[in-house]
Amino acid sequence: MYKVTVIGSGNWGSVAAKLIASNTLKLHSFHDEVRMWVFEEKLPSGEKLTDVINKTNENVKYLPGIKLGKNVVADPDLENAVKDANMLVFVTPHQFVEGICKRLAGKIRADAEGISLIKGMEVKKEGPSMISNLITKQLGINCSVLMGANIANEIAMEKFSEATVGYNQNKSAADRWVQLFCTPYFNVTAVQDVEGVELCGTLKNAVAIAAGFVDGLEMGNNTKVSLKDLMAQKISSPFPQLLDAAIMRIGLKEMMTFSKMCFPSVKDSTFFESCGVADLITTCMGGRNRKVADAYARNGGKRSFDELEAEMLQGQKLQGVLTAKEVHEVLSNRGWLHIFPLFSAVHAISTGRLPPSAIVKINEEQLSKLALDAFLL
Amino acid sequence: MYKVTVIGSGNWGSVAAKLIASNTLKLHSFHDEVRMWVFEEKLPSGEKLTDVINKTNENVKYLPGIKLGKNVVADPDLENAVKDANMLVFVTPHQFVEGICKRLAGKIRADAEGISLIKGMEVKKEGPSMISNLITKQLGINCSVLMGANIANEIAMEKFSEATVGYNQNKSAADRWVQLFCTPYFNVTAVQDVEGVELCGTLKNAVAIAAGFVDGLEMGNNTKVSLKDLMAQKISSPFPQLLDAAIMRIGLKEMMTFSKMCFPSVKDSTFFESCGVADLITTCMGGRNRKVADAYARNGGKRSFDELEAEMLQGQKLQGVLTAKEVHEVLSNRGWLHIFPLFSAVHAISTGRLPPSAIVKINEEQLSKLALDAFLL
Repeated sequence: MYKVTVIGSGNWGSVAAKLIASNTLKLHSFHDEVRMWVFEEKLPSGEKLTDVINKTNENVKYLPGIKLGKNVVADPDLENAVKDANMLVFVTPHQFVEGICKRLAGKIRADAEGISLIKGMEVKKEGPSMISNLITKQLGINCSVLMGANIANEIAMEKFSEATVGYNQNKSAADRWVQLFCTPYFNVTAVQDVEGVELCGTLKNAVAIAAGFVDGLEMGNNTKVSLKDLMAQKISSPFPQLLDAAIMRIGLKEMMTFSKMCFPSVKDSTFFESCGVADLITTCMGGRNRKVADAYARNGGKRSFDELEAEMLQGQKLQGVLTAKEVHEVLSNRGWLHIFPLFSAVHAISTGRLPPSAIVKINEEQLSKLALDAFLL
Repeated sequence: MYKVTVIGSGNWGSVAAKLIASNTLKLHSFHDEVRMWVFEEKLPSGEKLTDVINKTNENVKYLPGIKLGKNVVADPDLENAVKDANMLVFVTPHQFVEGICKRLAGKIRADAEGISLIKGMEVKKEGPSMISNLITKQLGINCSVLMGANIANEIAMEKFSEATVGYNQNKSAADRWVQLFCTPYFNVTAVQDVEGVELCGTLKNAVAIAAGFVDGLEMGNNTKVSLKDLMAQKISSPFPQLLDAAIMRIGLKEMMTFSKMCFPSVKDSTFFESCGVADLITTCMGGRNRKVADAYARNGGKRSFDELEAEMLQGQKLQGVLTAKEVHEVLSNRGWLHIFPLFSAVHAISTGRLPPSAIVKINEEQLSKLALDAFLL
């Protein structure tokens, strides 16, 4: 019998718990109960978040209005939440993973398997180190990943979307994760390429910044559009311009080249899964990375990302800008900058060293051919 | 010295002539003059189309308001137009190519090279036969192709777009075509994969039909939208839904699998060029195939494609519906229908044998895995 704990209870974590809980009720090889570790908070009413979740069956703070399933149990005690589980779902903000793993070391079951839904990476001198790898190293457990063209709130409303599980060697564990996540409205497939899937989920955000620059430039200097309307997606081009399509294409190529240069085991076919081309299109056309980058270009780079993020994202940081910085670090450590004109331009523009218009001047042809000839296909 | 003739003078043919004529003036290895064969028509004014083009330097019927360049010479006499040329650009409607080739046989220069800008294929028992191959067979000349994420009217206005030249063996001829088409706003690259590039240009239209069905279904039964507004792109979803992204992803996979099963020389990398993923995104988001399919699904399949085409396209036929029929013929000849659920569904829906909602029920996972495992990557 498998027992699942979800470590994290934000928007995506709550949706993951809901999905999983609907499946553990149906599948005989899983315990019905799904434990969800909740970072305890006091709500304005004075009640504790975990108490309210357990009483109302809703995460009133991060996924209001959606019943999680009666078999979801919120637990504020991290060690207690994981002690019986042999399937651990990691879905916390990027910056908390390492601390959580340190607290968990030696306190989880020996037969536990992990899966990470977290986007991001750490840059080491040797190259990027992925979150799944961090979890494996810290906890000594096998760790898969789940990424794809999906939006937590749409899954919560049971609208159709897809995801890809990337696994390392353990095919039977991967099949179990697919069983646990798959529903008629959430189509999950597994591929043996954990780094490829994880890098897709991470790098797409940097490409979306480029797509946002292009859109903002095309809108000319129309800075009268309120950032609130832009964020609420009320303003957008009626359909993608040809330049958007070119940016997505070059971005996909650079994602693939970068992934293969860092991890030679990465497979081309991964980029045709939901985590690849589908998630890239979705993120470049509609995500917050695109929208804030659009605002940045509309303002001619005169208002910094820090300022726009504060105004548009209530203090959250844009993943794409961070990722571009991390990628830039890898590229400059390894002397690869010239092979990745799009990634390089995104970092140079987002840090104010080049104007937004530089995005349409990247000379892809000469440069990335080098990389493609050497490493691809 | 190379001498160019453009065979065809519709919207795309006129734009091609303009592009080429701007380059022949600059490049020393080309004759300045670009001859354009025009199917002679009498204009409402009583004048002949060729006379007006040569007098005003504009194709007033198919590209009004755009100067073609003074070195473009319209010629109503096909044989005369080609007799001095050793670079032949084919850009006529699909259905006229064979007849034109028959008229040209034995009347062109022995050292002529061809390039086809025409989308479509002929289905033979042995499988699909591409237009470039038809030209090669009929005329005994080497024939490349040019396809990509571009829209004739946008190129005419010198907005940025891209294209891919697919060639067979003759690399130096391909380089010459790139020289002839490339401008600062029109980025052209060459790949050695004529069938791959040509199939990308052709098959994308069938995928766009699927994308249109999805959009039409999502709009519910909102048949109050006038077809004119739909066609003018005034109505569209604010950004692609996750289902659109899934359709494009599955479509790209089926395009690749189909191409490789028909022509084992087709390369995966071609699908990352402008002719591949970029053109697919553009066509699925904004082209006429998507729009008419959207109207079809909005109407629950109750108005036939013939009827909608007549109303929305002034009698032109949709390329995507024809392509789906041609692909279906190949698939059923070869017993491959089960490997291509998306292409099969598009044909079944567009001929009324399945309702539009069938597009969201294709079971991609089980089926196309078969194809992918066997043929891909």
